[in-house]
Amino acid sequence: MSPASAPLAASSPAPAYRRLSVEERRSQLLEAALGLFAHRAPEEVSLDDVAEAAGVSRPLVYRYFPGGKQQLYEAALRSAADELEQCFDEPPTGPLTERLGRALDRYLAFVDSHDTGFAALLQGGSVVCTSRTTAIVDEVRRTAAASILAHMPVTAPSPRLHLLVRTWISAVEAASLIWLDEDKQPPAGELRDWLLDQFLALLTATAASDEQTATVLRSALAMETTDGPAGSLARRVLPLVSEAAHLL
Amino acid sequence: MSPASAPLAASSPAPAYRRLSVEERRSQLLEAALGLFAHRAPEEVSLDDVAEAAGVSRPLVYRYFPGGKQQLYEAALRSAADELEQCFDEPPTGPLTERLGRALDRYLAFVDSHDTGFAALLQGGSVVCTSRTTAIVDEVRRTAAASILAHMPVTAPSPRLHLLVRTWISAVEAASLIWLDEDKQPPAGELRDWLLDQFLALLTATAASDEQTATVLRSALAMETTDGPAGSLARRVLPLVSEAAHLL
Repeated sequence: MSPASAPLAASSPAPAYRRLSVEERRSQLLEAALGLFAHRAPEEVSLDDVAEAAGVSRPLVYRYFPGGKQQLYEAALRSAADELEQCFDEPPTGPLTERLGRALDRYLAFVDSHDTGFAALLQGGSVVCTSRTTAIVDEVRRTAAASILAHMPVTAPSPRLHLLVRTWISAVEAASLIWLDEDKQPPAGELRDWLLDQFLALLTATAASDEQTATVLRSALAMETTDGPAGSLARRVLPLVSEAAHLL
Repeated sequence: MSPASAPLAASSPAPAYRRLSVEERRSQLLEAALGLFAHRAPEEVSLDDVAEAAGVSRPLVYRYFPGGKQQLYEAALRSAADELEQCFDEPPTGPLTERLGRALDRYLAFVDSHDTGFAALLQGGSVVCTSRTTAIVDEVRRTAAASILAHMPVTAPSPRLHLLVRTWISAVEAASLIWLDEDKQPPAGELRDWLLDQFLALLTATAASDEQTATVLRSALAMETTDGPAGSLARRVLPLVSEAAHLL
């Protein structure tokens, strides 16, 4: 850019070396770290990389994160966990499968944009995975489970319904890892539909042996529509179920 | 035992200090280590504990496992993985749910007898969890998936059927950890029945969008009996499904 355009440049966002507040600087470093941890295994990210990505010196990174990479990784994970927990925010109106579908869309977009870091974290075996990082991941799982139960809406879940929700969340995690491993095939929308089908199927099978789950299923089905996920699944499953007539 | 009974003692199993072959000694140390790792977190097991449990000296443990606790842990895990993989051996006859039910019974008995070690391994965050221990756990998961597919019987699974089997295995793992966390409630037999219900439900929902899975489901249902798991689920689910009539 020529010196003649200086007035224009002055109105652009300030470059990285302007004076930032402590909170702004910390956020800037965390954002740079998150960007790197998202797409590389933790082992392959150095503090020099973080300093370079943030356009600051390595000593400055250490001033904010004296615990070095481990502290930075945990802070970045904390920040990612907060972002992930926001995926579950959904107004409590409309059919359950549509609410869950929107949350799944946001979750899969998160997985898509943090692919390598997400896989490294959940597959374990990394040097930065400690009991503290495990605790953060477990907290996200608990938040997800509480959120799903709140949408059912259930405040005191039966052991069986709680087990169902928690195992479905594990199944979603496992499916996400396989999805990343298979170059994000099938497309995210198809994976979401399949995960919703699985959720309805698990809810139905659990309702078969648990009264509270049966109540949840009944009130959920009453709000579902013919052109929604439950209607679509019901029409596709009907011909298959009729093959089980000899078992009745 | 009094000296008078010495002749009887001579015909009993030899005490730990008799001369063992290299293989016998290694097995003895591994067995002692497995017993300790099964019921304590890896962090809480020292080589002194292993030496004491095996009735040998600490230097002798080091002679067999010069890499110390990490090497001993990995060898013990390898041995536990072999044992776990044997749970999946099942003759390819009879209804699929009954074969799967027997494999689940053996798997849950394994989880029951290795409770603390099983949880520590799968929950991660332990200092002894490395990319090598992760690889061993992944191998067990792959063996389990291959074994289930072989019983369907399928040699080249569709991506959807493969995804289903792998996510169900993750759901079983998650359910096992929750089961341990909740003092092994419900009883193992009830957990097995619920996991079988979940398997049938997932298979049915996936069959609704995948031709190969539909074929597998049809031939599986043809072999199921009215008093088996599929018959029981079909009778319990029927009244619930009728509530979805407005969706058709």
